[in-house]
Amino acid sequence: MNRTPWRPLAAIALALTLAWPVLSAPAPDLVVYGDYVLTMDPEQPEIPDGAVVVDKGVIVAVGPRPEIDRRYVAARSIDGAGRVLMPGLVNGHTHSAMTLFRGMVDDLDLMTWLNDYVFPMEGRFVDPAFIRAGSELACWEMIRGGTTTFVDMYFHPDEIAGVVQRCGLRAIIAAPHIDYPSPGFSGWDDSFAAAEDFVRRWQGREPRITPAFAPHAPYTVSPRHLRATVEKAQALGAPISMHLAEAPAESAYIAEHFDTTPVQHVAGLGMYRLPLIAAHMVQLDDRDIALTAAAGVGAVHNPTSNMKLGAGISPVPAMLAAGVKVGLGTDGAASNNDLDLWEEVRMAALLHKVDSGDPTALPAGQALAMATRLGAAAIHMEDSIGQLKVGMQADMIQLAVDKTRHQPIYDITSHLVYVLDSTDVVTTIVAGEVLMRDGTVLTIDEAALRKAVDGRRDEIRAVLGKKPEGE
Amino acid sequence: MNRTPWRPLAAIALALTLAWPVLSAPAPDLVVYGDYVLTMDPEQPEIPDGAVVVDKGVIVAVGPRPEIDRRYVAARSIDGAGRVLMPGLVNGHTHSAMTLFRGMVDDLDLMTWLNDYVFPMEGRFVDPAFIRAGSELACWEMIRGGTTTFVDMYFHPDEIAGVVQRCGLRAIIAAPHIDYPSPGFSGWDDSFAAAEDFVRRWQGREPRITPAFAPHAPYTVSPRHLRATVEKAQALGAPISMHLAEAPAESAYIAEHFDTTPVQHVAGLGMYRLPLIAAHMVQLDDRDIALTAAAGVGAVHNPTSNMKLGAGISPVPAMLAAGVKVGLGTDGAASNNDLDLWEEVRMAALLHKVDSGDPTALPAGQALAMATRLGAAAIHMEDSIGQLKVGMQADMIQLAVDKTRHQPIYDITSHLVYVLDSTDVVTTIVAGEVLMRDGTVLTIDEAALRKAVDGRRDEIRAVLGKKPEGE
Ligand SMILES: [Zn+2]
Ligand SMILES: [Zn+2]
Repeated sequence: MNRTPWRPLAAIALALTLAWPVLSAPAPDLVVYGDYVLTMDPEQPEIPDGAVVVDKGVIVAVGPRPEIDRRYVAARSIDGAGRVLMPGLVNGHTHSAMTLFRGMVDDLDLMTWLNDYVFPMEGRFVDPAFIRAGSELACWEMIRGGTTTFVDMYFHPDEIAGVVQRCGLRAIIAAPHIDYPSPGFSGWDDSFAAAEDFVRRWQGREPRITPAFAPHAPYTVSPRHLRATVEKAQALGAPISMHLAEAPAESAYIAEHFDTTPVQHVAGLGMYRLPLIAAHMVQLDDRDIALTAAAGVGAVHNPTSNMKLGAGISPVPAMLAAGVKVGLGTDGAASNNDLDLWEEVRMAALLHKVDSGDPTALPAGQALAMATRLGAAAIHMEDSIGQLKVGMQADMIQLAVDKTRHQPIYDITSHLVYVLDSTDVVTTIVAGEVLMRDGTVLTIDEAALRKAVDGRRDEIRAVLGKKPEGE
Repeated sequence: MNRTPWRPLAAIALALTLAWPVLSAPAPDLVVYGDYVLTMDPEQPEIPDGAVVVDKGVIVAVGPRPEIDRRYVAARSIDGAGRVLMPGLVNGHTHSAMTLFRGMVDDLDLMTWLNDYVFPMEGRFVDPAFIRAGSELACWEMIRGGTTTFVDMYFHPDEIAGVVQRCGLRAIIAAPHIDYPSPGFSGWDDSFAAAEDFVRRWQGREPRITPAFAPHAPYTVSPRHLRATVEKAQALGAPISMHLAEAPAESAYIAEHFDTTPVQHVAGLGMYRLPLIAAHMVQLDDRDIALTAAAGVGAVHNPTSNMKLGAGISPVPAMLAAGVKVGLGTDGAASNNDLDLWEEVRMAALLHKVDSGDPTALPAGQALAMATRLGAAAIHMEDSIGQLKVGMQADMIQLAVDKTRHQPIYDITSHLVYVLDSTDVVTTIVAGEVLMRDGTVLTIDEAALRKAVDGRRDEIRAVLGKKPEGE
């Protein structure tokens, strides 16, 4: 083939090719910049002076700012001067409406705390309006602190789902079922039926919401009922979130009744064949860890809650070494007392160093991964969230790192874990929608929320005032 | 005696007596209000809607707002709506200028961290200008976060004292001496002579500054030199601050060379006869604890540093039960990585619960006392700071508790420990002087400080860039 005549045409074609993206593509919705872009994508973890392009809620480009600016002109942009841009955090275990019980009582032994305060107060106060106010307060706090996805497990899940739908967060909302009476239910049959009903109604209804089953724990749900949960979850293709292997008393109960460990007990009932999200995972032996890794079950570590309730120290480094997908959670605000996932990241990094006596244990980058990429894997959403990567959901946050108390900066990952905190978050974006900008939450009416919370607080205070002081 | 004629006069005298304070007293300098006043004085711990009156740097009245307003009209006042008013925090152990090494390297084993990074970087960079910038950055951060008194131990103490004098904080500044070469010194003789010279020059010079001796640790200062320190400190009436019983390696060294524990080793050398401030106190046996309690030695617990370096968990509940005066410290920003005492309060409350498996261990009020009243006792200043009480120095802070993420509030002590953090501090006052108001630090030129810090950071970055990556 004689190629000579084509040369001028080839040059024109080349020029068109280079200009093509800018000339032809419709403007993407949004570009967000960052002096430091931490993608949590192992392929290109850190991009200095970078940018992420979002279209229709999905990430369409990630790269250095000059390259992105050459290729894209977005409809809107968010500046990144003095800011880190990174994936939003994943809170793998909470009971959001319990924010209304934040600091109600503290520093009590577990049984006094549960039997004298938590259960009676839940019995007295939990109703749909309580759940709306408490969940909205939780969502406000999570948006404010840079959490973009959470796994919830609490009463009246329809109310929680309504709040999540309105405020723009992403959530797995697990409907609780338990063998004992609970707010609104007399026991297993009605709570399990309501959970199934909730899952059926919310499947496919809102892309940001995944309904799930939440059998409370292996010591409060019988083997027969756990098997029924497995069958139903499998039939509906729904995930399961549950408390597992939390405190020594649970292990003692399972050993006495079933002669095994909590993990091996539920695995034997078929739960390890499903996308299970197991909260706590403190009381584990080597075989439990190997089984969890092999099954791909997600383990959610709640260091503050485990410390505050004296449950013990989860063998997180051993789980990570075995390949378990380990995420982080805050648990409810009654045992934390906030929903600040940054504190969990820092706590995890510190706790496992002192527990092992090894200052190289759980380095900063690994702790941060547990709140992002690994945390997404622990809740079985690693294909859509947890990294800034083309094709992933545009769930991302910016943190200000230009304050005097942040200086000097040598390593941004170390700073995120050991220096920065939730008050440094300035932007929160979920599925491309900006939920907070410059520190102002945009999707919740703060004044109305405060009014609802104050009303509930006054009622709870009145009841607490009649109780003997807990301490 | 016929008392009738005196009645009208008595009525006038009574009226005058009631009006007397307002009519006669010169206006005090300052009154500070708080919706919640937490005095940390066991006699009247909490005053709702209270006020503290300050004159000439000293607290002259503490009480409910209506009573204070009836009795005093101060020259200046600071509003307390939505705020807690409490004593400023006491940071019992830090190395302030190490803020310039904040996050330089992390997650390394202790020997690599010290020998490959900390010591060479100190040798290369520590000079008077470095200390001025680093200490000023530390003081800025402490004023910002509500710490009003700190115990420092670092090179060029004259520079640190100059910074403290200018910014208005209160400090015990301990001049370091050690048997090995250190920045500016060839070994023991010159470092010890310089420390004595520093103590003599600063004693009685500035009421907010107490100069002290700082023998580094029992494994870096010989018994003969520790005895010499005791003699000199006793002669000059100066306190001693030192690292004691920190890591297992120290205990092994002392056991091998002196066949005893670090505590019993230094106690045997006479150090327990002095106002000693012992930082860390992790590796202790029952006899060490009993000796420490009996001697009235202050123990400064640094939970974050001990966790990050994997040193171990200090037996704090056992020390408190034995009557040891236990305070809290941040240690330097190279092993923390900030000077946020609120994180230490929260960490102490959580760490000892999980360590003991007892959720009633170290309740919130006790953790907060370790940062205030008990912390003041641990540094031998319980007669002048740590409580809002008539006759004490007016060192106090206000925190905003009216943000949405703080709601609802049932118990203010629990909130201070488990929910609030350093970014909630809005006012910092030392000896009646307002160092921060509405979140703005008034006594440090922030722009000039940032310029100095940036300059040093660039130099350190250039050297770090030439080193192999630590991780
Ligand atoms: Zn839970
Ligand atoms: Zn130290």
